[in-house]
Formats: sequence, structure tokens, C-alpha cells
Amino acid sequence: MTTLLRVEIVQTPLALDLLVVFVGAISGGLVAVVRGYDVAGVVSLAIATGIGGSMLRDVLLNQLPVALDNPWYLATALGGATLVFFFAGTLQRMGAVVLIADALLLGLYGIVGAEKAIANGLELLPAILLGLITTIGGGALRDVLTGRTPEVFEKGELYAIAALAGVLVFVGLDRLDVSLTIAVVAGTAVTFATRIGAWRRG
Amino acid sequence: MTTLLRVEIVQTPLALDLLVVFVGAISGGLVAVVRGYDVAGVVSLAIATGIGGSMLRDVLLNQLPVALDNPWYLATALGGATLVFFFAGTLQRMGAVVLIADALLLGLYGIVGAEKAIANGLELLPAILLGLITTIGGGALRDVLTGRTPEVFEKGELYAIAALAGVLVFVGLDRLDVSLTIAVVAGTAVTFATRIGAWRRG
Amino acid sequence: MTTLLRVEIVQTPLALDLLVVFVGAISGGLVAVVRGYDVAGVVSLAIATGIGGSMLRDVLLNQLPVALDNPWYLATALGGATLVFFFAGTLQRMGAVVLIADALLLGLYGIVGAEKAIANGLELLPAILLGLITTIGGGALRDVLTGRTPEVFEKGELYAIAALAGVLVFVGLDRLDVSLTIAVVAGTAVTFATRIGAWRRG
Repeated sequence: MTTLLRVEIVQTPLALDLLVVFVGAISGGLVAVVRGYDVAGVVSLAIATGIGGSMLRDVLLNQLPVALDNPWYLATALGGATLVFFFAGTLQRMGAVVLIADALLLGLYGIVGAEKAIANGLELLPAILLGLITTIGGGALRDVLTGRTPEVFEKGELYAIAALAGVLVFVGLDRLDVSLTIAVVAGTAVTFATRIGAWRRG
Repeated sequence: MTTLLRVEIVQTPLALDLLVVFVGAISGGLVAVVRGYDVAGVVSLAIATGIGGSMLRDVLLNQLPVALDNPWYLATALGGATLVFFFAGTLQRMGAVVLIADALLLGLYGIVGAEKAIANGLELLPAILLGLITTIGGGALRDVLTGRTPEVFEKGELYAIAALAGVLVFVGLDRLDVSLTIAVVAGTAVTFATRIGAWRRG
Repeated sequence: MTTLLRVEIVQTPLALDLLVVFVGAISGGLVAVVRGYDVAGVVSLAIATGIGGSMLRDVLLNQLPVALDNPWYLATALGGATLVFFFAGTLQRMGAVVLIADALLLGLYGIVGAEKAIANGLELLPAILLGLITTIGGGALRDVLTGRTPEVFEKGELYAIAALAGVLVFVGLDRLDVSLTIAVVAGTAVTFATRIGAWRRG
């Protein structure tokens, strides 16, 4: 019963997955614009950032990546890249909106990743790692592809810790047999609060 | 019927695959020589550049990489590395030959990659991405392994766009039920012309 | 019979695998400390270095990574990271111990990786490559993630060559039907001697 519910919540929210891809693609595309890359660079970084995390997760789970199985993932990443190409200036001025969207999705997507790992029979510790890879992997791939140290490794970056906190809260509540919805909401909220708190304190 | 033909053309040209590995290994090995690496570096970069693209493609398709299944891939990459080791100077003077071979294979190998993805049931958009990863992945891996931004992302690089143009022409003609041979030749020609044109204009 | 024996030796030494993870995690964590990363960085690099090699090997073999299937791998990497976090200074003063442990495991783990590849039906050349990826992959991943050229590619680095020598000796003796134990010991000894010899000559 519980397993069925879990599989359900992992597979249902295509719209959420696509939202993550969209926000990731925009953030990746903007990085490419800042660094002066041309169309090919913007599109490549938008795709890598948008679908890289779920692709790494699925490759590690030894499955065909959902981002290749369902063409909407790539279409959404291309949509984000197009938006960046035509409205880079506007998007950069909307930095706070992108940050808030990113902070919300950071926790939610880590939880979705951990859930998928658990639904595939992994134990807690590997499932937590896969959740983190899912939610942080896209940005890390973007940084590696542009020859930078992934931001998550640099001193003072609370990004990874915020993501981890949310996944831990989710997994902990899930173990305590709290309802799935509450666990997801609580985990996402913890990540969001940690991330925004760290950002406001500079 | 069509599917059978497709699978056939994807699996037949081992000689072509090995030619791609050979040219890739030479180009990767030469990069290592230019940067002053020793034997281990030349061999590693030759292998990574030669088989990296098809390896990434197969890992993403959730299959055992053909470059590991068939030992001729590695043997060919080692052959390319050996050639670089003994005749680096000559090969560098043959830069135009390597460039032309590379431009020819760039389109052809992207098409082979897209075909393999389609033969494995992927839809168009992911198949196009996999074609690009197949043909560009080796060089990108080489650059990431040597701590550089992959050249394909840098401004003015028409490499990725040339590869994309050929794959799009191929996929489009294939959809229009043009004969497979014509689609392959046309796609390869478009990539070749774009690539050489960009190179001649500097 | 032989195949059964092989599979046995590949799957038995969990303690050895965990020792490799432990030493790798410590070396990765120390690199993070030297570069001034914070907790997230130390933990990430310890995990990447500790389990990266076997993860790459298993992904390439198209299997669920053993480091995700068995939670002790991650637990061990976290143990190494914790040790680094509290005793970085002491560990750095124990540089020679870490070097010797690393030199011993370098050969042994390459042999385990090659064995696993052979047990999965790969031919010699790809099996040798997979052995090298298993034993060198973690450190290479650590360097790529921190934006450096993997040390194995740089001039004068005998690391890869020492690992290769041991794997070749093992594979050669194995082919000659020498007992598995002797082949493993001889291969490990060759790598150890090459590595320590290169280090002593500076």
C-alpha cells in the first residue's frame, strides 16, 4: 500500500518535473549569456542544467532517463533557452523571482529524487544521496561543463546543505508514518527557509 | 520493414565506427601532445576522445557501451594514440586532412547516433540530442578532463551547429520517407559544408 | 569452475571495497580541506573520491552501482569525511601512511575492477580499461569536480602507469592459469613497487 502511494507520487507530477526543467534551463541559459556564449552555448547549458540532474539520477538507477523517454523535457528546456535568448535582460532583472522559484524547487526536487530511489528499492542513505544528485546535479553539470568548480563545493555555499536539510526532514517524517503530503510540504519548507535565510544574510 | 532497415544501418558499419574512433583518438592525442602530457596523458585523451561519444550515448540508452563490448574500439584508439606518439609532428602538419576527415565524420556519426536512438524507441527530439552527444561528446569529454570549457560552448564555435544541421536534415528527410541512403548522404553533406564553410571564413 | 571462482573473489571482499572507499574518502576530504571548502565540500569530495571509481565502473557495466545498492559504502565515505573534519591536521602529518595505503589499494582495486569486468563477459582490453577506471576514476572525478585537470594526465604522473602495470601482470598471470591468489598478489606488488619507487625518486 505504502509503496503504491509512493510510486504514485513519484510518477504523477510531470508538470512539476517540467517546471524544474524550465527554471533550471533559464538559470543555465543566463549563466551562458553572462559568460558571452553564443546560441549553441545558451542552448547547451540550458539543456544540461535543466535535465542534467534527473538524467544523472536515472543513469545511476540504471534506467533509461525519463528526460530522454519523454520529449517534453527537452522541449521545455528548449523553451527556457528561447526565453533566455530573447529576454535575457528582463530575466536578469527578475533575479529575485528566479531565486525564490529555485529555492522552492530545490527542496521539492530533492524529495522527488529520494522518493524515486526508495521506490526502486534503495536504502535510506543512497536514496538521500540520489535526492541530492537529482536536485543539485544539473547545476553541477553546468559548472563542470564550463570549466568551473561547482558552486556547491565552495566555502559558504549553503545550497547543498539547504537541499540536504529538506530531504532529511522528508525522509525522517516518512519513516514516522506521517502522511506523505505533510512530509513533502515540511521538507520543501525547510529547504526553502534555509536557502532564503542564507541568501538574506548574504 | 523500415525499422529493420534502420537497425541494419546502425549496426552494420563497424568500419565507420572504428574510423570515427581513429580520427577522434588522433585529435585527442594531439591535444595532449600540445599540452605537454606524457604517454599516460596521450593514451588517456586519445581513448576518451575516440570512444567517449559512443560511450555516453550507450550509457544514456541504458546499454552496455559497444566500445566496451567490442575490443576493436579500444584497440583502434590505442592505434591512434601510438601514431600520435611516434608521428605527432607529421600529423600536426596534416592538419587540413584531419579537419576534413573530422568534418565528414562529424555529420555521419551524429546521424548514426540519432538512428540508434530512434531504433531504440526514442522520439525525435531526444534522438536528435543523442545524435549530437554521440558526435560531440568525445571532444567535450576530452576538454572537461583537461579542465577546459568544451570548445562547443564557446562563442563563434560553429561545430555544434554544423552537427545539428546535418542531423536535422537527416531526420527531416527520413520522416518524408526519402530513402535512407539519400537522407544519410544529404545530412552528412550539410554538416560538412557548414563546417568547412565556417572554417574557411575563419 | 574458473568463472565461479572469479565471481566469488569479485563479490567476497566487501571489507576490501570499504577500505578503498575509506582511504579514498580521506584523500578526497583532505584535498577539500587544503582548498578551503566547508563541510559540504569536504563531504562531497570525500564521497566522490571514495565511491566515484566503482560507480563509474558499474554504470559502464550497465548495472546498479554497488555503492548505491549497499549503504555501507556511503556510510564508510561519511566516516572518512568525519575523520577528516575533526582530524585533518593529524591526517596530513600521516601523509606517508596514506600514500602507502593508497599505493597498496591502487593495484588491488584495479585488479578487482578488471575481474568484475571479466566476470561480466568483457574481453581483455575493455576489462583492463575498466580496472583502471575503477581504481583511478574516483580521484579523476574529484579533480574534475574541483575544476582541475585530473592529476593522472599531467606529465610525470606515474600513477596511471603503476596501476596499469599491476592490472597487466594480473591479467597475464590469470591467462597463464596461475592461481588467482598469486596473480592478485603479484599484480598488487608490481603496482605498489612502481608507485613507491616513482615517489621516492621524486
